[in-house]
Amino acid sequence: MPIKTGKQYVDNLDRARPSVWINGEKVNGKISDHIAFKGLISTQAAMYDMQWKGEYCEQMTYVSPTSGDPVGLSFLQPRSKEELIRRRIMMSLWAETHHGFLGRAPDYMNTALMAFSSASEFLSEQDPRYAENMRNYYIYCRENDITLSHAFVQPHIGRFSTFMQTLEEPVAARVIEKSEDGIVVSGAFLLATQGVTAEEILVFPPPLPSLSEEENPYAFIFAVPNNLPGIKFICRENFVIGSSRYNYPLSSQFEEMDTLVIFDRVLIPHNRVFLYGDDHMVNQFLEESCFHTQVTHQILCRTIAKTEFLLGTIEYIVKVLRLNTYAHIIEKVSEVIAVLETMKSLLLAAEDKAVTDSRGTVIPDPDIMFTANFIYPRVYPRIIEILQLIGASGLIMLPSEKDFYAEISEDINKYLRASDMDAKNKGALFRLAWEMSANSFGGRQALYERFFFGDAARVAGRLYNGYSKRDRNIDKVKKFLSST
Amino acid sequence: MPIKTGKQYVDNLDRARPSVWINGEKVNGKISDHIAFKGLISTQAAMYDMQWKGEYCEQMTYVSPTSGDPVGLSFLQPRSKEELIRRRIMMSLWAETHHGFLGRAPDYMNTALMAFSSASEFLSEQDPRYAENMRNYYIYCRENDITLSHAFVQPHIGRFSTFMQTLEEPVAARVIEKSEDGIVVSGAFLLATQGVTAEEILVFPPPLPSLSEEENPYAFIFAVPNNLPGIKFICRENFVIGSSRYNYPLSSQFEEMDTLVIFDRVLIPHNRVFLYGDDHMVNQFLEESCFHTQVTHQILCRTIAKTEFLLGTIEYIVKVLRLNTYAHIIEKVSEVIAVLETMKSLLLAAEDKAVTDSRGTVIPDPDIMFTANFIYPRVYPRIIEILQLIGASGLIMLPSEKDFYAEISEDINKYLRASDMDAKNKGALFRLAWEMSANSFGGRQALYERFFFGDAARVAGRLYNGYSKRDRNIDKVKKFLSST
Amino acid sequence: MPIKTGKQYVDNLDRARPSVWINGEKVNGKISDHIAFKGLISTQAAMYDMQWKGEYCEQMTYVSPTSGDPVGLSFLQPRSKEELIRRRIMMSLWAETHHGFLGRAPDYMNTALMAFSSASEFLSEQDPRYAENMRNYYIYCRENDITLSHAFVQPHIGRFSTFMQTLEEPVAARVIEKSEDGIVVSGAFLLATQGVTAEEILVFPPPLPSLSEEENPYAFIFAVPNNLPGIKFICRENFVIGSSRYNYPLSSQFEEMDTLVIFDRVLIPHNRVFLYGDDHMVNQFLEESCFHTQVTHQILCRTIAKTEFLLGTIEYIVKVLRLNTYAHIIEKVSEVIAVLETMKSLLLAAEDKAVTDSRGTVIPDPDIMFTANFIYPRVYPRIIEILQLIGASGLIMLPSEKDFYAEISEDINKYLRASDMDAKNKGALFRLAWEMSANSFGGRQALYERFFFGDAARVAGRLYNGYSKRDRNIDKVKKFLSST
Amino acid sequence: MPIKTGKQYVDNLDRARPSVWINGEKVNGKISDHIAFKGLISTQAAMYDMQWKGEYCEQMTYVSPTSGDPVGLSFLQPRSKEELIRRRIMMSLWAETHHGFLGRAPDYMNTALMAFSSASEFLSEQDPRYAENMRNYYIYCRENDITLSHAFVQPHIGRFSTFMQTLEEPVAARVIEKSEDGIVVSGAFLLATQGVTAEEILVFPPPLPSLSEEENPYAFIFAVPNNLPGIKFICRENFVIGSSRYNYPLSSQFEEMDTLVIFDRVLIPHNRVFLYGDDHMVNQFLEESCFHTQVTHQILCRTIAKTEFLLGTIEYIVKVLRLNTYAHIIEKVSEVIAVLETMKSLLLAAEDKAVTDSRGTVIPDPDIMFTANFIYPRVYPRIIEILQLIGASGLIMLPSEKDFYAEISEDINKYLRASDMDAKNKGALFRLAWEMSANSFGGRQALYERFFFGDAARVAGRLYNGYSKRDRNIDKVKKFLSST
Repeated sequence: MPIKTGKQYVDNLDRARPSVWINGEKVNGKISDHIAFKGLISTQAAMYDMQWKGEYCEQMTYVSPTSGDPVGLSFLQPRSKEELIRRRIMMSLWAETHHGFLGRAPDYMNTALMAFSSASEFLSEQDPRYAENMRNYYIYCRENDITLSHAFVQPHIGRFSTFMQTLEEPVAARVIEKSEDGIVVSGAFLLATQGVTAEEILVFPPPLPSLSEEENPYAFIFAVPNNLPGIKFICRENFVIGSSRYNYPLSSQFEEMDTLVIFDRVLIPHNRVFLYGDDHMVNQFLEESCFHTQVTHQILCRTIAKTEFLLGTIEYIVKVLRLNTYAHIIEKVSEVIAVLETMKSLLLAAEDKAVTDSRGTVIPDPDIMFTANFIYPRVYPRIIEILQLIGASGLIMLPSEKDFYAEISEDINKYLRASDMDAKNKGALFRLAWEMSANSFGGRQALYERFFFGDAARVAGRLYNGYSKRDRNIDKVKKFLSST
Repeated sequence: MPIKTGKQYVDNLDRARPSVWINGEKVNGKISDHIAFKGLISTQAAMYDMQWKGEYCEQMTYVSPTSGDPVGLSFLQPRSKEELIRRRIMMSLWAETHHGFLGRAPDYMNTALMAFSSASEFLSEQDPRYAENMRNYYIYCRENDITLSHAFVQPHIGRFSTFMQTLEEPVAARVIEKSEDGIVVSGAFLLATQGVTAEEILVFPPPLPSLSEEENPYAFIFAVPNNLPGIKFICRENFVIGSSRYNYPLSSQFEEMDTLVIFDRVLIPHNRVFLYGDDHMVNQFLEESCFHTQVTHQILCRTIAKTEFLLGTIEYIVKVLRLNTYAHIIEKVSEVIAVLETMKSLLLAAEDKAVTDSRGTVIPDPDIMFTANFIYPRVYPRIIEILQLIGASGLIMLPSEKDFYAEISEDINKYLRASDMDAKNKGALFRLAWEMSANSFGGRQALYERFFFGDAARVAGRLYNGYSKRDRNIDKVKKFLSST
Repeated sequence: MPIKTGKQYVDNLDRARPSVWINGEKVNGKISDHIAFKGLISTQAAMYDMQWKGEYCEQMTYVSPTSGDPVGLSFLQPRSKEELIRRRIMMSLWAETHHGFLGRAPDYMNTALMAFSSASEFLSEQDPRYAENMRNYYIYCRENDITLSHAFVQPHIGRFSTFMQTLEEPVAARVIEKSEDGIVVSGAFLLATQGVTAEEILVFPPPLPSLSEEENPYAFIFAVPNNLPGIKFICRENFVIGSSRYNYPLSSQFEEMDTLVIFDRVLIPHNRVFLYGDDHMVNQFLEESCFHTQVTHQILCRTIAKTEFLLGTIEYIVKVLRLNTYAHIIEKVSEVIAVLETMKSLLLAAEDKAVTDSRGTVIPDPDIMFTANFIYPRVYPRIIEILQLIGASGLIMLPSEKDFYAEISEDINKYLRASDMDAKNKGALFRLAWEMSANSFGGRQALYERFFFGDAARVAGRLYNGYSKRDRNIDKVKKFLSST
Repeated sequence: MPIKTGKQYVDNLDRARPSVWINGEKVNGKISDHIAFKGLISTQAAMYDMQWKGEYCEQMTYVSPTSGDPVGLSFLQPRSKEELIRRRIMMSLWAETHHGFLGRAPDYMNTALMAFSSASEFLSEQDPRYAENMRNYYIYCRENDITLSHAFVQPHIGRFSTFMQTLEEPVAARVIEKSEDGIVVSGAFLLATQGVTAEEILVFPPPLPSLSEEENPYAFIFAVPNNLPGIKFICRENFVIGSSRYNYPLSSQFEEMDTLVIFDRVLIPHNRVFLYGDDHMVNQFLEESCFHTQVTHQILCRTIAKTEFLLGTIEYIVKVLRLNTYAHIIEKVSEVIAVLETMKSLLLAAEDKAVTDSRGTVIPDPDIMFTANFIYPRVYPRIIEILQLIGASGLIMLPSEKDFYAEISEDINKYLRASDMDAKNKGALFRLAWEMSANSFGGRQALYERFFFGDAARVAGRLYNGYSKRDRNIDKVKKFLSST
């Protein structure tokens, strides 16, 4: 059953029954019935359905080299620019479905896993079984269309800097025991987004340095199903207020829960371990797999879809409120247009200038990809600011769906309509803008984009340190100066 | 009964029973019991109680010149710098209570009414009765400690520019009839903040120009109780999610509802009308009363309290997360310190350079006041951005109060604590920061500060056009150039 | 003699003897000997020499369709993407020569003329002779490798808005007489950059509206040699301080003089007139020719070369001062890297998405080109700011070439060297950075980039009003909302 | 002869004949005749003349407690707020003379010396003679109205970080010998501004840490005349192009030369040494003297005068070009108004909240002073940017004085005038704006303001680390949270 249907996705989630806590209570019923998850699950189910029914099937899948069955295209390891472009087309189709609001749509982790598997050879340096485990796991996920989340953010109190300050035993996750059956892990990770709405979880934290031991217990990469004994998910505040699509057009469909995932003596079977004990190898493997570059290809498809949708919303408001003659409005909308055209050009150029690594995998140009990573967290908050500046009081004076079915509906229609739009449609547009820019859903989205790939210093460091044209540029100046 | 107790305030609201609609339903029970209002009402009740009990009574009141009773100090018409300073001390005490989150705390409208009344003489130019009505109303409010809201924002569809484009009959509020008993008004206003949690409403929209009639029906200033027949309040989306102070430390206490207030053939008694029929006079009266300057004195007390509280929160997070050695953190916190010290210096300087108008009222320096108005909408979003950048993932991974009383509390305590702070206190701090910066409460606050006194162009225009030192500065350049 | 040699370029300039005034004096000797012009002329001569000697000849020229001789490639009317790319390669080669500091390198006007000629058909609507004149003139310039400047900026006092305020006779250039030999023009234009270092001048001001006459005397496009009787060039302040390349590495080579060009009853022969009398046609022709889009292709080649050179300088300073471990330095340099990679991606994407107009000319994607126009004036000043912030006091403490040949040279070598670089080379690097960012040359460059295509509002308007994807983006939002 | 006349100042400079090198040549004639210095010297001579003739004498001086003669008011050690205000009035009078373009007007160093002397007691901890030397030197300078410069910036190659990287002998200045007559110093300092146009130089570099010796040879504070044997000044590039006040209204009058000052075995007499050998004491003394706070009082007087003059210039251009109806112009000018009103309010508030130190010296509020230091380097470049954006092409098309006396003057008058201003006056205004924003003079001013008190990180650190209200603000949050 290579590609999954939406129904299979929902059934898998409901059957798994992982340990999930929200607002002090354990989720006992079906995950897909719970208000905090059901909108998102339904959205992702529809995405899986795109793989086998409707007009896009062909663009969504390719033939599995092992089974001959159609499998999800985001698993494809690109060996040519054409395959890179096929990946982009598929990822854009999904991104258009959720308008970029899902930071952890399934193709994100599929891409990560594809990158890891492409570089599995490197793992042999440590142990050939690691390489084999990685390849097998990749095939398993591809052939079963597994929905993955990942975990890597250490609790603040578990981080090295804090650890060094306190000299206490860190609470960061680590291997506490090894047995014939596998390794036993205890500890926790922050911010496992969609931890609860995925089937498995891939774990690869930046390892804390080892102090004395031969094997560094903080250094590992592994993957497990969500419902192994000892795994627990604790959800943050739920931001889904209601399931009315009119009232909450975004949060009712696209709200991804973030979780604290706790490992309490969880046994990881050996065949699910991809690296262990050597922090240098773990760090190096991320580099070797071109993880950041490959997933940025997916991210760009997503941020482009998101920017288009934000721009469309802004332009629609401008149209409805007839603001298109004001110079300051034109300048602000132009900023957003410029962001969109820039992101699209970066994507196109990164594919055009793609390079092939030593293992034959095609990698979108890293300089351009890291540029995109650098730019988006800086421009996204500005787009949201522009939406606030243009939406203004319209983002506050929000009628609700019920208002239109009450005695006061006539008043609302009279006073809250626009010149060419009735109050209900205008309300829908502004509620959309409000969720984008001014409620909990929008607030989390802003934080998510700001910190998608780390804080500003880390993202700048990645661009700066990896920049491939430094010497070439300096040499131009040297040559110029030597000729004077 | 000049100054009101908190209980009187609550009783008055509950007794009045204005027509209030929220989420398609009419509020039938006590206003003070409704989740959308009760936190705010309780906060304001406590503020009124400060007038008569506790350590600040003396600083909160003065002796009424008419009744000899203690009345609220924000009603005081300042005739000296000392009185200006007394006003500031009183307003700051209230602002410290709500930490600046109430944009329409009672002293705001008390100040507006004080300004109007101080310039009541000007109304005589139109009709001596208008001046008398204004003075009497001011005395009535002061002696009865009336809580006021105001209404002035035209529905978008009712604005002149839209009206001119469509050539339809505008829906802006206007006088549709005059009788022996008063004038009859129909129409609506957006954004009557605290419309429901005040007792009376002062109405002074910027008048649409008159086309043909002798009396401009769009030009008027009047005040009425909230519960007159024909007045209806329609609330926007309610942002109070719950009344747990732990979970929602700000919205459970400081959430001010904004309302669409509708006048449907409401009879305004003659003695409550302060101007009618002449749009020039209405516009001029706002100028003459120094409305903007006087209320900015109140606003500055509020924004200073708010900035202090935001800075305190930011500094507390820096302390708890031990971030104070990072240069980029130091620079960001310094930005907020600089804003706070600037706002405080502007307040002090405006008082120091206060001027006395032709009627003997002391006015804080307008250039400085309009500077403050210009600056704050620009820096407030940046402070919020800094809070997001420093709070980072801590603003997402929010435990709830119930989590600490559940089976998982131990996990949460272990993994979400900071080095020197347990998880519950850390959670409280970050939930506070979250409400400031990333949920609906924070979203509305951001929009509110951005547009407090109109959009950026209007606020800049007020500073630019009113600037009193233009010629002096140009003359320096002229003199310099003529000596070269 | 289709392509010109450097010597021919110099001889042509020296032979022409136009009327040139600088600092109150008429230039009587050879233009190429005058300090204000000689560096630039020598630079451009070397650029012309690239066409016939050295390694780039082939990439610089193509075979003329009329003469069969090699002609300059920037005259090529692109009929395919490949030809667009050939143009880009040629224009980049020249841009690499002057590192983007020449805003009016010859390929700029060659491109403008190419665009005009490509749309010459449109001129037939007015008069078939105009179309023929335009085509002939294009061929004449191409076959004689004419160096062109242009004039279009009205004196401030001659602009419509000022004219309307004063109701005086405008001083804007206009046709004051028509005769059998041509039209007679009087008036002046600001800012004819390189007016004196070109051979001919193409004149196309935005026409003032006609008030009463049948033919609008302010509406015309024509071209003339610089030395026609009645043409006079008045230079602005000269920014070339000295010809030492060490001291003034940029201004000694790349300083383009801006001139006020005055027409005093100048007779324009009929065959040099391309439009006359109809302001609508003049405005429309600029649109039809895709002038802005085509020249932006040249501009992007230039700004990319410039950004690379600025980045190289910044990176060189970082290296010499060993600053590459400071987070704030990394972040600033990354900003510049991101600008460079963005501009390059925009160029590549605009070619990739090029469109063919109704006359078969290939046009780089306008949305992307106008995005580039929108972005660069905003980021250029920031790059210069970053250069100042990184160069710091090194940009002030500038030794001169003579210092190294004086008694004090030992002191300078001891105290002004860097760890791995002697004082002379360090001085050369910082003098380069100083000319980029802090002297008259750099000051003019900043102003030039800020206003290259008009002020911010005009440039935003061009992007906004021409944007081709507005409806598509709005439709996505409409579709989303209708499905909720 | 306590207060100096302008003539005495000039004579002193001309008589001293220090060793000065500029552009590879030694200055042999009178300093006051050299184009690089004469404008500035003449400006400062006029400032000294204000002390004894004209309307401001009384405000410029006070009675010396030692001689009973009038001495310069910027030497006054303030013992009350009133004296602080007297100081401000005097410093503002001088600042109005040079419009803030002199960063090292004499009152700057007078204030520094006053601060040092006020804290001289602290030096006794090391050696009572140091305290006495300092007091005596202060009295000497005050009673002889000595013009001082200072030196403290280490050559880059001499800094600790570079030193640590290279492990070479640092070139930083140090004591190489001690004798009965004094200490012998070798080494150099960058950026001794006005080194050549002052009489004496006060030297207090941040000491490099001592490695092994008992006495740290890099730790010292002393003062000497400029013309001691072994002292040499090497000037940077001269930015004075000409002495025409029309052409160069600022650089012809206000250009302060920066110098590399070299000490080659210079003997510093014992009575001119204020500290030696203990780096901790040197660092502590700067703190104790409140150096930064006291000189910021002078700086604020200067930056306010400068901002007024920049604003006047901007407003004059707006007036001449009739731009005051454009919203984007209004917003930009308002930004500058807001800066000016802010700086003025900070000054007033810092005086109002001044504190008295343990020695009875009155210190303007440090939090506010460091806020001013933090703000100005951020807003000054923006003011210059606004000037560029408003001045636009007018800053490029600059006629020269000679143009108005040549044959072309009529053309210039016709085409370069404004509606209400002839071309010559318009040219004067724009040349002023050009020098402010776009030539070497303006470029240096921008760099000077950016780095006046160190780079952004250092200035932020000073504000952040010294902030006195941190705990108070955090406590408000703690109290709020504990009540929830």
